[in-house]
Amino acid sequence: MPLDNRLRDHACLTVHGADQAGLVAAVTALVTRNKGNIVTLDQHSSDPEGGAFFQRVVFHRQGLAAAIPEIEADLAETLKPYGMEWRLTDQSVPKRMAILASTSDHCLLELLWRHRRGELPVSIPMVISNHTNTAEDVRSFGIPFVHVHSQGPDKREAEGKILELLRGNVDFVVLARYMQIISEDFLDKIGVPIINIHHSFLPAFIGAAPYRKAHERGVKLIGATSHYVTKDLDEGPIIEQDVTRVNHSMTAGDLQARGAYVERAVLSRAVQWHAEDRVIRHGNHTIVFE
Amino acid sequence: MPLDNRLRDHACLTVHGADQAGLVAAVTALVTRNKGNIVTLDQHSSDPEGGAFFQRVVFHRQGLAAAIPEIEADLAETLKPYGMEWRLTDQSVPKRMAILASTSDHCLLELLWRHRRGELPVSIPMVISNHTNTAEDVRSFGIPFVHVHSQGPDKREAEGKILELLRGNVDFVVLARYMQIISEDFLDKIGVPIINIHHSFLPAFIGAAPYRKAHERGVKLIGATSHYVTKDLDEGPIIEQDVTRVNHSMTAGDLQARGAYVERAVLSRAVQWHAEDRVIRHGNHTIVFE
Amino acid sequence: MPLDNRLRDHACLTVHGADQAGLVAAVTALVTRNKGNIVTLDQHSSDPEGGAFFQRVVFHRQGLAAAIPEIEADLAETLKPYGMEWRLTDQSVPKRMAILASTSDHCLLELLWRHRRGELPVSIPMVISNHTNTAEDVRSFGIPFVHVHSQGPDKREAEGKILELLRGNVDFVVLARYMQIISEDFLDKIGVPIINIHHSFLPAFIGAAPYRKAHERGVKLIGATSHYVTKDLDEGPIIEQDVTRVNHSMTAGDLQARGAYVERAVLSRAVQWHAEDRVIRHGNHTIVFE
Amino acid sequence: MPLDNRLRDHACLTVHGADQAGLVAAVTALVTRNKGNIVTLDQHSSDPEGGAFFQRVVFHRQGLAAAIPEIEADLAETLKPYGMEWRLTDQSVPKRMAILASTSDHCLLELLWRHRRGELPVSIPMVISNHTNTAEDVRSFGIPFVHVHSQGPDKREAEGKILELLRGNVDFVVLARYMQIISEDFLDKIGVPIINIHHSFLPAFIGAAPYRKAHERGVKLIGATSHYVTKDLDEGPIIEQDVTRVNHSMTAGDLQARGAYVERAVLSRAVQWHAEDRVIRHGNHTIVFE
Repeated sequence: MPLDNRLRDHACLTVHGADQAGLVAAVTALVTRNKGNIVTLDQHSSDPEGGAFFQRVVFHRQGLAAAIPEIEADLAETLKPYGMEWRLTDQSVPKRMAILASTSDHCLLELLWRHRRGELPVSIPMVISNHTNTAEDVRSFGIPFVHVHSQGPDKREAEGKILELLRGNVDFVVLARYMQIISEDFLDKIGVPIINIHHSFLPAFIGAAPYRKAHERGVKLIGATSHYVTKDLDEGPIIEQDVTRVNHSMTAGDLQARGAYVERAVLSRAVQWHAEDRVIRHGNHTIVFE
Repeated sequence: MPLDNRLRDHACLTVHGADQAGLVAAVTALVTRNKGNIVTLDQHSSDPEGGAFFQRVVFHRQGLAAAIPEIEADLAETLKPYGMEWRLTDQSVPKRMAILASTSDHCLLELLWRHRRGELPVSIPMVISNHTNTAEDVRSFGIPFVHVHSQGPDKREAEGKILELLRGNVDFVVLARYMQIISEDFLDKIGVPIINIHHSFLPAFIGAAPYRKAHERGVKLIGATSHYVTKDLDEGPIIEQDVTRVNHSMTAGDLQARGAYVERAVLSRAVQWHAEDRVIRHGNHTIVFE
Repeated sequence: MPLDNRLRDHACLTVHGADQAGLVAAVTALVTRNKGNIVTLDQHSSDPEGGAFFQRVVFHRQGLAAAIPEIEADLAETLKPYGMEWRLTDQSVPKRMAILASTSDHCLLELLWRHRRGELPVSIPMVISNHTNTAEDVRSFGIPFVHVHSQGPDKREAEGKILELLRGNVDFVVLARYMQIISEDFLDKIGVPIINIHHSFLPAFIGAAPYRKAHERGVKLIGATSHYVTKDLDEGPIIEQDVTRVNHSMTAGDLQARGAYVERAVLSRAVQWHAEDRVIRHGNHTIVFE
Repeated sequence: MPLDNRLRDHACLTVHGADQAGLVAAVTALVTRNKGNIVTLDQHSSDPEGGAFFQRVVFHRQGLAAAIPEIEADLAETLKPYGMEWRLTDQSVPKRMAILASTSDHCLLELLWRHRRGELPVSIPMVISNHTNTAEDVRSFGIPFVHVHSQGPDKREAEGKILELLRGNVDFVVLARYMQIISEDFLDKIGVPIINIHHSFLPAFIGAAPYRKAHERGVKLIGATSHYVTKDLDEGPIIEQDVTRVNHSMTAGDLQARGAYVERAVLSRAVQWHAEDRVIRHGNHTIVFE
């Protein structure tokens, strides 16, 4: 796996749970006694009395890779009395990200291109699509492309194939305008976070042909939302949102083209923040330490 | 009525209807033969084949006020074969705008303040509120304040009083966070456009306490929409929209405070564009010649 | 040359010069008598008394290509008494756009990608670079790539080669982060508009390493400006500008990466508007009919 | 002094200086042993190796007001070996803010209005102006208004009077479009931070009539910058910036009117962040923990 040398010996620790007095002090003391020097620390409490606690610490520690097991042991022991959830990652190890796509290429290519520029701290073991039109583009980035046919009423076979390809091989999955519904069964079995992107409007236009409806209604803004996938389709925790201005001189097709540029920007930021462990999920919302 | 001398002898003509060849030429020839010099012309066709046609022309015409009847006669005759709707206004005559408000003052004061700065081409004959808390502020701007009590289940009496105050005295009405539902009967009788402002979210949060719901969902943007009031509450033609960025560190109260600043900006722009005859309604959407 | 069938029989006429009464009427009458149906008309007068006049008309005319000579003859005769500059283009004929680039690929690839999506009404006869690193990418879009070496103090030879390649073959040139100074001689000889993109800050940081200086100064916004190239380097008429938000947690490198995304978006919009004849130059500024 | 009960027992501690291992742990341990519970912690290191360190901690501590002296003693002792600068404030005690204004009222009234809405954690002991036009408005908010005449070449007398009014009575000063140059002598003697707002453009337009110059150049964005005042006029550390979109149809006067709305929004955010101790100055830039 390619290591990012700028981030060598940098760890990221996220902690969250019920807020309690002394938590920040306990965590920072732990970093210090494990010879870490804190580079960035963000902390948020939803309510000082009885709220939830969220913390992200990036620290530098000479010889981090070898020290991780003992730091984790210390974390387990230190945080057990507080009942906190925590995660420690070596920032020089890129997360493995698979992309699922369909015919649209704008989100897919944007991710591949930012990755090539070194702006996304991920490796991309494969792109899976239920269409073949983007195969050549994907492979020109040196990324494997796998076609998994998904036509017909029974999606189980296609999902089964995708699961086989992904399980154990990826740390998270991105749906880059993947136009297939993800089954609950797939969600249960995949075991890693899935990030989705979809268009968004004020007001919302439900159902098919949302850009046509937005055009008919004469909206002045169109937007996009990136979120984690949960069993309630498109209702998962929001990671990032943005909008762009439109006007009456644009056709429904123009709105869709404009929307594509918001989608690729919003999804890219969501993926970057997730890959940098800046996003903590809590119930149905997120804490994003930008 | 106070006249705006910068706009003396400036007329605004809006025309819309089914698109037909030669319409722009017919209108511009009419302006020329009536001694007008076109300052600004915006035209939009929703579809060159069988679509709708929208035009806004501002022209300068020495001695406009006296010439309006003959220009209108020419318009009636010229546009009759095309079956177009049209409206001619003298831009130096400010539109008469009444404001309906409740306890919130942010939209109300913003309009009064922009009006005082000479940025809204309107006169404000009165502010009507179902509360009294803003009376002193309104009167400090030299604007009459009228309290119309609206408690109790029967709103007809309050609406009747408001209708009495407004009918014949105003060219349009602004609901500046007016927290009463407008009845169909009131809409039928008032006979002038009503502009409303309300908060908007991606996704939409229906019902009570939307800011609390938006906060629980962890939205990253909150917005506002200004629209014309129709019988379908909050579903009328959109005039203007905007959003502002929020994050997890803000409480539901913070979101609401932020939202207030978007609301006052969006409503102010909508009111200005309406007052400048920049907005043409068509079905359930608007054409805005900014 | 590939024609855009959606725009078949659509002409774009731009007119500008000293404002005079009756101009809009004269132009629209001309369109009508030449059997054109106006689709969009935008007009702007910098001052109704003695100002400058700008107009853009898009009209549909059955059999446009064959009729252009007679329409041009009519235009010449009609507009001669007014002393106006005008230009008539067939919108179904894409403008020929050459791109000059150096090592940076973000603006270059964005243009190629939008072109492939059918969003830029241009053909791209060639990309010329003084480096070779983007050759493979450019050719994967099916666009010819030409390397013109420009090292050494004497740029005249390189400029001469570029002139030979471009003269007569292109309608405009885009500098997509082309890091060579364009000589006055080149500007004189090329004879077509050149569009440039550069980073922009509030306040401006002159000279080398602007992102480092902006970082040291702690700016909260970074931006980009796209403009026509004139003899005063980076001082030509502005076509489009935009900014993005940055903060103290970002390094100078992060600012530069963020800036790249603003640059590609701003340059793309400027190129699109130029290609659609939406931009009229007047002195050192532009009128953009968006 | 009016106390803000929502913030009772909340302290804000800011620490900055040369980065050293263990600093965050030392500070958080100090908060814990002084019975504080951390509500929010933001920390930034400009470079983990030999950079600068910035930290803002908000903590809740029962009986804070009485405990401040002992916490400060602990801070002095704990942070002495690190050589850090630090400041501890009781968040329930609003900062005393004086406003200096001239004829423009947009920034002045916005601050008074946000203060009245309870959105700025400050008290406003007085507004000083070298003009009298805003006196009535200011007093309608219940705020003292003092007119200090500043005509004539010798500004020393006016500055002397202002110093007499302010010294010892305010924690910071806001220049809300105050059109007098602040002398170095005044800056030396006032001894509290001064926040200014001014228009900003890309590119910058130096000298008189910047809006006219921006209009002539056809800029597409106009902006505003709020910064701390230093001896280099308008070159002090930037706190906040923003822009708004403009176009060719606007006059120089329209740009100025639009600019006023950016100015009041940017200044308000800068004042709020300063009042909440979210801004740390470092050399000629700022760290803003939004």
